[in-house]
Amino acid sequence: MPRKKIDILTYDATLRDGAQAEGVFLSTEDKIAIALKLDEFGIDYVEGGFPESNPTDIAFFKAIRMHTLRHARLAAFGATRRKKMKVENDPGIAALLAAGAPVVTIVGKSWDLHVRDVLKTPLDENLRMIEDTVRYLRRKRKEVVFDAEHFFDGFKADPDYALRCAVAAAEAGAQTVVLCDTNGGSLPEDVQRAAAEVRKVLDIPLGIHTHNDANLAVATTLAAVSAGATHVQGTVNGIGERCGNVDLCSVIPNLALKRNLKCTAARKLDELTDLSRFVSEVCNIVPRMHQPFVGLSAFAHKGGQHIDAILKNPRTYEHVPPESVGNERRLLLSDLAGRSTVVEKVKKFGLKRKGDVTNRILRKVQEREHEGYEFEAAEGSFELMVRKEIGRHRGFFDLEGFRVIIEKRENGQPVTEATVKIRVGNEVKLTVSEGDGPVNALDGALRNALREFYPAIREVRLVDFKVRVINPRAATAARVCVVIQSRDRKDVWGTVGVSENIIEASWQALVDSVEYKLLKDGTRSKR
Amino acid sequence: MPRKKIDILTYDATLRDGAQAEGVFLSTEDKIAIALKLDEFGIDYVEGGFPESNPTDIAFFKAIRMHTLRHARLAAFGATRRKKMKVENDPGIAALLAAGAPVVTIVGKSWDLHVRDVLKTPLDENLRMIEDTVRYLRRKRKEVVFDAEHFFDGFKADPDYALRCAVAAAEAGAQTVVLCDTNGGSLPEDVQRAAAEVRKVLDIPLGIHTHNDANLAVATTLAAVSAGATHVQGTVNGIGERCGNVDLCSVIPNLALKRNLKCTAARKLDELTDLSRFVSEVCNIVPRMHQPFVGLSAFAHKGGQHIDAILKNPRTYEHVPPESVGNERRLLLSDLAGRSTVVEKVKKFGLKRKGDVTNRILRKVQEREHEGYEFEAAEGSFELMVRKEIGRHRGFFDLEGFRVIIEKRENGQPVTEATVKIRVGNEVKLTVSEGDGPVNALDGALRNALREFYPAIREVRLVDFKVRVINPRAATAARVCVVIQSRDRKDVWGTVGVSENIIEASWQALVDSVEYKLLKDGTRSKR
Repeated sequence: MPRKKIDILTYDATLRDGAQAEGVFLSTEDKIAIALKLDEFGIDYVEGGFPESNPTDIAFFKAIRMHTLRHARLAAFGATRRKKMKVENDPGIAALLAAGAPVVTIVGKSWDLHVRDVLKTPLDENLRMIEDTVRYLRRKRKEVVFDAEHFFDGFKADPDYALRCAVAAAEAGAQTVVLCDTNGGSLPEDVQRAAAEVRKVLDIPLGIHTHNDANLAVATTLAAVSAGATHVQGTVNGIGERCGNVDLCSVIPNLALKRNLKCTAARKLDELTDLSRFVSEVCNIVPRMHQPFVGLSAFAHKGGQHIDAILKNPRTYEHVPPESVGNERRLLLSDLAGRSTVVEKVKKFGLKRKGDVTNRILRKVQEREHEGYEFEAAEGSFELMVRKEIGRHRGFFDLEGFRVIIEKRENGQPVTEATVKIRVGNEVKLTVSEGDGPVNALDGALRNALREFYPAIREVRLVDFKVRVINPRAATAARVCVVIQSRDRKDVWGTVGVSENIIEASWQALVDSVEYKLLKDGTRSKR
Repeated sequence: MPRKKIDILTYDATLRDGAQAEGVFLSTEDKIAIALKLDEFGIDYVEGGFPESNPTDIAFFKAIRMHTLRHARLAAFGATRRKKMKVENDPGIAALLAAGAPVVTIVGKSWDLHVRDVLKTPLDENLRMIEDTVRYLRRKRKEVVFDAEHFFDGFKADPDYALRCAVAAAEAGAQTVVLCDTNGGSLPEDVQRAAAEVRKVLDIPLGIHTHNDANLAVATTLAAVSAGATHVQGTVNGIGERCGNVDLCSVIPNLALKRNLKCTAARKLDELTDLSRFVSEVCNIVPRMHQPFVGLSAFAHKGGQHIDAILKNPRTYEHVPPESVGNERRLLLSDLAGRSTVVEKVKKFGLKRKGDVTNRILRKVQEREHEGYEFEAAEGSFELMVRKEIGRHRGFFDLEGFRVIIEKRENGQPVTEATVKIRVGNEVKLTVSEGDGPVNALDGALRNALREFYPAIREVRLVDFKVRVINPRAATAARVCVVIQSRDRKDVWGTVGVSENIIEASWQALVDSVEYKLLKDGTRSKR
């Protein structure tokens, strides 16, 4: 392991603290997908969950065993043993061990107020709870990370006691002691001062875990690093309870590009934007446009004078090169946005007057994006749009019409029926299908109609279906964006539709899915 | 004016820098509304716009004359005179004077790179541009604020030159020199060091203006205040170009509650959340749930142990009291939340055998959550579920049936029609409505059916509509969760529905919305 040369280790808590965010729900499959992505990116520790409190976390620890993490070490999270209980009898500790992760992260109190008001136990018993738990887990050959909860609030209230909690964990064998700003309200100067005091009394690696309640999480993390912390905990996109945890998408580039520190998580820094968007996608969160480093607007220039200066020298209005974090510059008043992507796509068609075509397509993309289309996860629809724009599209069928009826009687289940009428060449086909809902019924009817003409349609499976409301304030008249992922034996492709009518938006995405399939196969009608 | 006793003056740039944000467009009326709100709140300076570059800003300065600002001083923003031009002939300076604001904010270069690569003028000429402009505007009896653009980048590259720019403005008569981290990439320690150097050579008030590109804007602002800055510029909600300006909604409470500094803008600190939401509303921006201090989730607790502790002592997981910034605590229901949340909710019904009831409700919540219901943002549906569970629910109507038809012909727009048949007492009502989509049509038909019986239904507005696919891998047969937010003149409430059929899920949420409205009003049928 090359860790000796590394200045800072990163510890991701997206699957545990991140899942605490309001509006975030992660299935076991989602968690596996994120864990593998974090590993591939170069995160050193991945916290998988809190097995005692959450049944879906137990499922995660079981499922992850089928996969291999190449770099990251997996951590299970739990609390110190219960008061007045033997550690070996504690069900929480048993659940932690049952998770089977090589690293165990133990959270313990270090603020006297919490020991008194929440644990309602003597201050000394809390110290014993820390010691017993850490020592027991070390005997079980676990790597132990000790999260000193509320360390900075504790240090303010009773510095001596807070330090004793940290020392108790270290003396019991914890390999890392992490100072937590659990309530997210500490100022950077207070964090730096307290961390420096801990540094004086402990000679094991120190960590930092901060929250963003005072909008200072990145600053308090950097302050602790200045004071000697070498282990940094956070979540991708800063998702987490209340105002979130510190955003690793800000911390990692700040450490690497501003502080010139080495960390494995910065070796693929140019994939940071991709990591951020991947996690947003899996969590079904709308990415924050203005998010530092990785947001769509992070390097977007709108003012005319700014754009003019940027064209003279990008350093004039960019603190780091956008490509260093895998993001890109966008000049909003010009047609240059996303140009390189489009240039790239146009190139392969081998057209003349590439410049004109590129500009026309860029305008189309911007128009569509303005209407709410998202092409990032919809390469299929993008390709079809480009082909239509340059006259290289041929349709596979024409729609004569569809009708969907959803009917409910009293408290029974609703019944949904869709009819589709299409024309392929001179032949007209009318089909019908029931379904679990209107989109499912429509999908069924469309497939029934097409499969005689295009048998390859049978191979297509829809693997993902997402609905995003574009303008939620318009309530039930809001415009929605539907993104579908489809697959056959060889490929996976995404398609998109947008409309005030969710059925119409879904229909657009379904039609694109089918057309893209037939296009890529180079299919002709069998009839 | 009581300014002598004030430690920190606040300067709002929402109408100028904020309007540079991607996706923000402000009309003159919008700007007037925001300016009056900022004045009422207690902001000391309101920057109205950049008259030279923006025609709508000229309109704003004209229109604002019809109004009286009771506290705030209005500022017009512009650049130093053009190179090799007499200041009195410069059209930009003339536009600034024409704006008629008592304060003029002049931005000037202080980074040698910008003078060379963007202005393409000798370093000395830039100093004369600063001096001439400030002196001229002082002669015109304006209060002059000098924004030293890119001061910290300039100080890093050539500290001597950056300082000379600041001194030039001060010696020419500027009342305040503001150090700008224009690219938003500076670290707090660098800002503090540079500001302290300026403090040594200037004895006029110093200001700070930061951007959030490194996710450190609040920290760099506080660092400058530590070094002696007494004038703080920012925008409401941190809106601004790229990653935005520093968020005044974070800066003001940090200064007042954490640093114990006095500022007029903190006198109505308990109206901060209202200010934030007002500006989001006018800018037509979806408020950021996790925004520090003022976000909907800023004091929302989801984890069961956290909720349990909060009920024992709110300080355990809250860095400041939510009411201090006009926000409120929310205890979220989720599969991670424990018993105490439900206990709290059940308490108000004043039931006997609370334990049994609580257990029954907890089981119900868990069952429902397992099916995909989210009660976090659906207090309305939660209340109705509890009432049904304890036999305290009475229905307001019965559904006999509904039917929704969505029909599309060739490439036309789809037509949607919903019919609803309900029974209130012995009366049966059959209504129909068209709509933008199936949910909108169903909403219309339900309202048509109910309004004769319950006229208060007219007051209900649906303000938000969210769709989440619960098991996206099931593709078009996936189960969806629909969450609706409704409001009347007094309240806002959320309701939820879940089904494989999006129409059925929406129907459940619509029915709950209506029933919750009637329940809370204590309504009886008018017929």
